[in-house]
Amino acid sequence: MSDPHPAVDADYVSARRRETRTRLLDAAAEVFAEFGIQGASVERICARADFTRGAFYSNFSSKEELFLALLEREYEQRADQIRVRAAELTECLRQSPEPPTREDAAGYVTTFLSPSGNETSWFTLETEFLLLALRHPEGEVQHVDFNLQFRSELSNVVESIVHAAGRRFIIPVDRALTILAGGYERAVRVSALSGFDAPEGVNELGDRFAELLFTITEPV
Amino acid sequence: MSDPHPAVDADYVSARRRETRTRLLDAAAEVFAEFGIQGASVERICARADFTRGAFYSNFSSKEELFLALLEREYEQRADQIRVRAAELTECLRQSPEPPTREDAAGYVTTFLSPSGNETSWFTLETEFLLLALRHPEGEVQHVDFNLQFRSELSNVVESIVHAAGRRFIIPVDRALTILAGGYERAVRVSALSGFDAPEGVNELGDRFAELLFTITEPV
Repeated sequence: MSDPHPAVDADYVSARRRETRTRLLDAAAEVFAEFGIQGASVERICARADFTRGAFYSNFSSKEELFLALLEREYEQRADQIRVRAAELTECLRQSPEPPTREDAAGYVTTFLSPSGNETSWFTLETEFLLLALRHPEGEVQHVDFNLQFRSELSNVVESIVHAAGRRFIIPVDRALTILAGGYERAVRVSALSGFDAPEGVNELGDRFAELLFTITEPV
Repeated sequence: MSDPHPAVDADYVSARRRETRTRLLDAAAEVFAEFGIQGASVERICARADFTRGAFYSNFSSKEELFLALLEREYEQRADQIRVRAAELTECLRQSPEPPTREDAAGYVTTFLSPSGNETSWFTLETEFLLLALRHPEGEVQHVDFNLQFRSELSNVVESIVHAAGRRFIIPVDRALTILAGGYERAVRVSALSGFDAPEGVNELGDRFAELLFTITEPV
């Protein structure tokens, strides 16, 4: 009746479980991007991850729950990445003897926003989620929550970067951020449809945001 | 063998045909918004419009073709609406003895952008179309074309309104327009998810765009 290694076993079980979850999420990201939410069956996700349906249902109650978990993981990874990049950029700006020129700013923005994965397939997933949220109120709440969380992260980050560059916003920070967010989201959509180099695509953001930032901020 | 009223008959036939097409498009708009592209069968659209499948296929070769025709009609209606509102606003600004204040500008923007139909169901349709375009290259080209057409319409309109208000853009007009377009699209999405009065929703655009316009334009 007694177990000689209960803690080890528990660790093992929970590590196993995390690994199963991670592999299911990775497989689901691929299958959802390829086939959409409607076209991505639990069977297909299990086949891609090389798991049984039993393994699936011991981790997620439905395809929709898995989808939400996937989005949550992606938002968390993006928030982490923004924190790291913001810390690097702020440090770089503080150490710089001169305030940045517009050309410097364009370079910083480009680095800050450079893609870290398959942006197009992520954008497709986000669009699927948006449709789901438009049609199901529970999804709606989740969507708003993700965005709010991400947004407050961004707000602090952008303000501290602008401050480190020796400037301040002429308009309220939250409003400036709404404008930047709209510009970024539009560029990502254009790029997903027509490529990163398309007019108004992501590759123009460095120059455009630098121009905008020099118009809606002023030296301190 | 001779027809006493060939012109009348031809007119009658083409008017009948236009009416059938219009009724199918109206029915499809409702069915697509409710069930999505995948869930909207030709049967369902025909039932809603009270037509047979024969009437459908003598007008459209497929559900997808109907969907594109619907989007084209909507874009044309929107372009017409923008032309009318821009002409009214330009006239109003020209007759005004004083240049507009920021409060005036907020009012003008609100009127200019006020919804003329069911914006949320149209946004859902656009999102469906975006997903279709992301997954099918032919859709992609159409999407880009619609947007380009709409865009050049907007560009002339916004520049002439700003000019009539006695101001000019500090940054290039096309870049200002990209920023405004991104802000508008974002607000429409937020509103479709959380209502027009939600923070960053459409009902805040008047005040926000006025603030932005007074920052990125200057008096002539």
